[in-house]
Amino acid sequence: MTDSKTLKQALEPTADAAWVLHDDGCDPLRENDRATRFAISNGFLGVRASQVINRSPQSVASPNTYVAGLFDTPDADRAVPELVCVPNGLQVRIGLPEGQLVQHFGPGPSHPLTLDMRRGLLLSECRLVDGSDVSVRLRLLSLVSQDHRSLGLQLLDLEVERGETEMTLEAAFEGVDRDLVAERLENELGVWRTRHSGKRLGLAVGLSLRIDGQEAAPVVLAPFKWSWTWRSRPGQIVYLERILAVARSDAPDQDPGAEVRDDLKAVSQSGWRSLLARHEAAWANRWSFSGVEVEGDAAAQKALRFAIYHLTGAANPDDPRVSIGARALTGADYRGHVFWDTEIFLLPFYIMTWPEAARSLLMYRFHTLGGARAKAADRGWRGAFYAWESADSGIETTPEQAVGPDRQITDILTGTQEQHISADVAYAVWQYWQATGDDDFLVEAGAEILLETARFWASRAQPEADGLRHIRGVIGPDEYHETIDDNAFTNVMARWNIRRALDVAALLGERWPERWADLSIRLDLHDAELKSWSDVAETMATGRVPATGLFEQFAGYFDLEDVDLSAYAGRTVPMDVVLGRERTQRSQVIKQADVVALLALLPDEFAGETGTANFRYYEPRCGHGSSLSTAMHGLVAARLGATGMALDYFRRTAAIDLADTKVAIGGGIHIAAQGGLWMMTIFGFAGLALRSDGITLTPHLPASWNSLSFSLQWRGRRLAVRIDQANLKLDVRLDSGLPMTVAVYGEPHGLRVDQGLVTDIRRSDQGD
Amino acid sequence: MTDSKTLKQALEPTADAAWVLHDDGCDPLRENDRATRFAISNGFLGVRASQVINRSPQSVASPNTYVAGLFDTPDADRAVPELVCVPNGLQVRIGLPEGQLVQHFGPGPSHPLTLDMRRGLLLSECRLVDGSDVSVRLRLLSLVSQDHRSLGLQLLDLEVERGETEMTLEAAFEGVDRDLVAERLENELGVWRTRHSGKRLGLAVGLSLRIDGQEAAPVVLAPFKWSWTWRSRPGQIVYLERILAVARSDAPDQDPGAEVRDDLKAVSQSGWRSLLARHEAAWANRWSFSGVEVEGDAAAQKALRFAIYHLTGAANPDDPRVSIGARALTGADYRGHVFWDTEIFLLPFYIMTWPEAARSLLMYRFHTLGGARAKAADRGWRGAFYAWESADSGIETTPEQAVGPDRQITDILTGTQEQHISADVAYAVWQYWQATGDDDFLVEAGAEILLETARFWASRAQPEADGLRHIRGVIGPDEYHETIDDNAFTNVMARWNIRRALDVAALLGERWPERWADLSIRLDLHDAELKSWSDVAETMATGRVPATGLFEQFAGYFDLEDVDLSAYAGRTVPMDVVLGRERTQRSQVIKQADVVALLALLPDEFAGETGTANFRYYEPRCGHGSSLSTAMHGLVAARLGATGMALDYFRRTAAIDLADTKVAIGGGIHIAAQGGLWMMTIFGFAGLALRSDGITLTPHLPASWNSLSFSLQWRGRRLAVRIDQANLKLDVRLDSGLPMTVAVYGEPHGLRVDQGLVTDIRRSDQGD
Repeated sequence: MTDSKTLKQALEPTADAAWVLHDDGCDPLRENDRATRFAISNGFLGVRASQVINRSPQSVASPNTYVAGLFDTPDADRAVPELVCVPNGLQVRIGLPEGQLVQHFGPGPSHPLTLDMRRGLLLSECRLVDGSDVSVRLRLLSLVSQDHRSLGLQLLDLEVERGETEMTLEAAFEGVDRDLVAERLENELGVWRTRHSGKRLGLAVGLSLRIDGQEAAPVVLAPFKWSWTWRSRPGQIVYLERILAVARSDAPDQDPGAEVRDDLKAVSQSGWRSLLARHEAAWANRWSFSGVEVEGDAAAQKALRFAIYHLTGAANPDDPRVSIGARALTGADYRGHVFWDTEIFLLPFYIMTWPEAARSLLMYRFHTLGGARAKAADRGWRGAFYAWESADSGIETTPEQAVGPDRQITDILTGTQEQHISADVAYAVWQYWQATGDDDFLVEAGAEILLETARFWASRAQPEADGLRHIRGVIGPDEYHETIDDNAFTNVMARWNIRRALDVAALLGERWPERWADLSIRLDLHDAELKSWSDVAETMATGRVPATGLFEQFAGYFDLEDVDLSAYAGRTVPMDVVLGRERTQRSQVIKQADVVALLALLPDEFAGETGTANFRYYEPRCGHGSSLSTAMHGLVAARLGATGMALDYFRRTAAIDLADTKVAIGGGIHIAAQGGLWMMTIFGFAGLALRSDGITLTPHLPASWNSLSFSLQWRGRRLAVRIDQANLKLDVRLDSGLPMTVAVYGEPHGLRVDQGLVTDIRRSDQGD
Repeated sequence: MTDSKTLKQALEPTADAAWVLHDDGCDPLRENDRATRFAISNGFLGVRASQVINRSPQSVASPNTYVAGLFDTPDADRAVPELVCVPNGLQVRIGLPEGQLVQHFGPGPSHPLTLDMRRGLLLSECRLVDGSDVSVRLRLLSLVSQDHRSLGLQLLDLEVERGETEMTLEAAFEGVDRDLVAERLENELGVWRTRHSGKRLGLAVGLSLRIDGQEAAPVVLAPFKWSWTWRSRPGQIVYLERILAVARSDAPDQDPGAEVRDDLKAVSQSGWRSLLARHEAAWANRWSFSGVEVEGDAAAQKALRFAIYHLTGAANPDDPRVSIGARALTGADYRGHVFWDTEIFLLPFYIMTWPEAARSLLMYRFHTLGGARAKAADRGWRGAFYAWESADSGIETTPEQAVGPDRQITDILTGTQEQHISADVAYAVWQYWQATGDDDFLVEAGAEILLETARFWASRAQPEADGLRHIRGVIGPDEYHETIDDNAFTNVMARWNIRRALDVAALLGERWPERWADLSIRLDLHDAELKSWSDVAETMATGRVPATGLFEQFAGYFDLEDVDLSAYAGRTVPMDVVLGRERTQRSQVIKQADVVALLALLPDEFAGETGTANFRYYEPRCGHGSSLSTAMHGLVAARLGATGMALDYFRRTAAIDLADTKVAIGGGIHIAAQGGLWMMTIFGFAGLALRSDGITLTPHLPASWNSLSFSLQWRGRRLAVRIDQANLKLDVRLDSGLPMTVAVYGEPHGLRVDQGLVTDIRRSDQGD
């Protein structure tokens, strides 16, 4: 009975409640939200926390599993690719002679779920009852391996409480044929292909069932459909172990069948205990790099754990051909497409705690430069104009129309007009290089992205009679206003992008002259063009009003109707739905941080007190009609010392995916809001900033936070930071790497492995 | 080639554009709306106008056909019954050696649909192209028979324009197994049962395919899956004829398999031409009874045709066990459940133009009295408390919770609190009897409904210290305000209900003393109880303020916040979403006609000018958050002579299902809005009112309407009314039946078959 004992240990969640997310009951209306919130993923596989006990034939069709990069178009001529929905491969049916034994919804804890965030495990249990005759208790463990991303594991422990009858357990992987075409089907191995995109999926499954410790042989009903039948008796313990191996192939010469066969063979030899142990070790390793601890605010601690859990599950450092969609691998909204969310809201977390993942995500943008170049050329511009919505190839995949929250069909102009994406990618490249010092990446890939995006902007910003360069006909982060001119965010980011490209050109020329020679020849990029970029940057219109230091969000914005948003405090829908699309477009109501986002990303562009002035102007005009908005506002509020307001924004951001008052996340985790929560905490409350010669910290903790501790990586070094507000101390430890400089409130301190930094900090004044 | 010629005639829509609804293109985002708008139905079968060319395996699962009364619960313990979705049985696949030939979406008329409302036919066509090699043109006709409701017909005419290749046509009826369990399957006959509700569905299909006039034999691939393969050549004509027979069985001893076999056999002998001819004759007959003509306003004419088309398709005079759901048989919203919509918004049309259908709908309420009695008894009241949402048995089927438009989960209290439903059913019973003089119905069924609902109200309204009877803890038609006391609509309708019950008791005692003796014994209803009802009616609180004649919508309403709705004119969502649920509940904002509905139904309760006073008070406070609201307002506005405002409400009501600006009707036709459009026209613009001794007409036509003509039935008589505003004449013709009295502007005129009435009318003053 050793097996059973170890299994019981595996099924026991981490005791510390701060590490687990628990949900007691099962409410049919909230089932989809729960399936999102408790999803498990590893950057390659994402499995929603759907019920595993099959209730009816319909449920097998519900899309429950995603494979990163497995895109297809639903129709040959509706050519918007979407992540293929692979049915949940973990479902089971339990049969009695009279019919199926299913779980009954009802009041009370009918199907508790526990997400063990520390170990990356989904644990669940339920009791299935048939009248007074039969009662079985099920405990389940599911994981997708953080150690070996192609593997998934399910352990099911079934205890017969009552009932002496013929019992059947059926384990199947049904419904794959719904969106995929079978190429090859064996009992435990299958290969399918997508209908249109030429990708293939390999799947192998290994199962074993033990009844009171004795292995039982299955009946194979069909490929991927196994069944066991036995005589049940009270006290009987049955346990099922199921291992999945999954592979995606993008090329005809890569056989996903052979891959999954080999994967499954290897793991079958070492067994599920080894798989589980390696998975848990991989999670422990990740938490050691990325953990954030808050004392004094349990809800904030839980929210940060939840954010880091999902951020960790979203990325895959081993696949530079995929990036992270707007709902990561947890739901179907936005079809798995990649937006600026990744570079602006997610990359900071990866750059500072998991640079291998960050590099891989940026390599995805390098590999999709072809699509970005084609998009620019199609429209008569030069360089790289990245897709606003990007799938696998990097070509633009934004749908042309959609139905809005008011059920109006509207044309979607973001794909052509939301051009700041190119500068956002460049921003992340630079930030990655600043933080990691990864010169190889810069020389091999990053420089080319910076140069090609700069070239795009130089061709895009046209000189006019006023002597300035203008960028007309765009959409900024505030998507309520379309086809606008000189969006401050776009233009200032574009200028910054050009300047960093000039920096990198100079740097390469100086440090890697041969590489620079190669690259400049390949890009046909000469000094005259670089000189012209410099002119573009120096004459770029920005909309800054010298007298006030305010950036006008776009040309004409200040003349629009000023709607007092406080009159609409009770609303439960976005402002464009309240006011109607047309009136919103004619008003100053902002969908999401725009000038405020610029202030968050490029604070040095705001001299003196003008950062505060801009924030005070724009913050009341923002309706927060996007899940990206509150985090940016919170970050800036914290930096400006308005920690009360910042904490409110923190809570609103955390509520997006964790509050249970609305049914809103069935389509997947708002992964950018999770990244934003981390950014707000580290860049806002802790006041981290990256400098060319080190890092700076300017803490502004909320009054209720006794302390904030976190880990960082910086240019090959590991740092541990603890801001102890209770004792007004800041403690920075260098765990590895060369000495460096940490500035606190602007004052530089040396830091060495053998000599930590302990310094006094000021109490936040909590103003807002 | 006689076949082909007649088929071509059948495929030709009615030439008069006022009789057809046409849609040129096919926009994927609007496909669901189009499938609703162009649906065909006959009160037993409803088929959505989905694409018949199968694009992918998914589409077969889309729910496209409904069978009236075929309810099941999706889960044994989620016991809210819903209409089973039977897949569309009209789909075809066209195969080429290289794969499937599917229709490609694109700009231009890729898949025009034509609804021939006169003939009750859906006509469509499309061209399928494979590169430059193959091109075929398809024309389709679909109907569900208005003559023999269990039958459906599809005719498909395929013309090969280009292509010499092996072509396959596959006709199948797939996916029935999704929600139903097969009991018996033969090639052309199947019987399925529901999972939980014990109902059965029988289906038989007869097919024939002719290639250039020669019948070709199919290959039977599986039950309900036929395939033909031939060598195509340009100019070739292939046509498919498919007849469906469908039967529902509610009882084990009724074999739906035998029924459909017999039906199909009979129709196969007479052929599709006879089926089509009888269907067209049945539609012509219905239009002769229910047609409404408007001169001078083509859009209003089209909207009324559309309304009457769907109203005609919604009812079945032959099945007194079903009623009409909130979306009729055209979509899945509200699960096929029956609301007060049927009695208050639909019955008037049927009562005045199709009394056989009206009788059948009221018999449904008679057959569900058991459920209504049980609901009252469960809550400690007496008599009949009808289900707010009713399915097949009459037990309450309102779900306990739902997700609102703001994605909040809310408890649904309508099932327990929206009690006016009992008075609404009584109102329709009385109106039916008033209009038809159907004493058999009154004695056999109507009286019992009136008495049992009156008994409910007598037990429900409790005396309090002020000497009045109060009804506390209800919801009125305005569902924004819950758990309110003394809703004017509820209380006044309840009082009216009790008074009519006393009338019917007296009438039965006088005219049918033996039947009354039987009934009163069976209901245990004695004089003392009748006397007590009279006391209840005389002391009912009504909320009427004597000084102003205003009814207070409910106790405390006048003290709530008065929100100026004109400030929210641009909004695109209901006011409760704009203000939030809590603030709306604390405000005077009304979801839909409440006191105004009372004024529409019982104008005699509003003395002198108090009708106008109440309308002027409540109309500006209504947010029209329900599709039922505008029609009631328009009816009252027209009666009060505010024809400009009334026409605006007419247009807003027509837009609910016909305007193409929003994507909003995928879940089905708002059949109550269609009924409301008819009511507004006949009771509002024509000013029809029923009196015990005849009818009255008080016309108030919109200025743009040159004339309004319509047919009516009244106590066995057929009348034709023409209001000629251009010449200020009213013309009423009695086509059959005994002489009667018609009052115009209150002045009585005699009317005989041989002597029509022609009288002058006043020009509407168009005030509003």
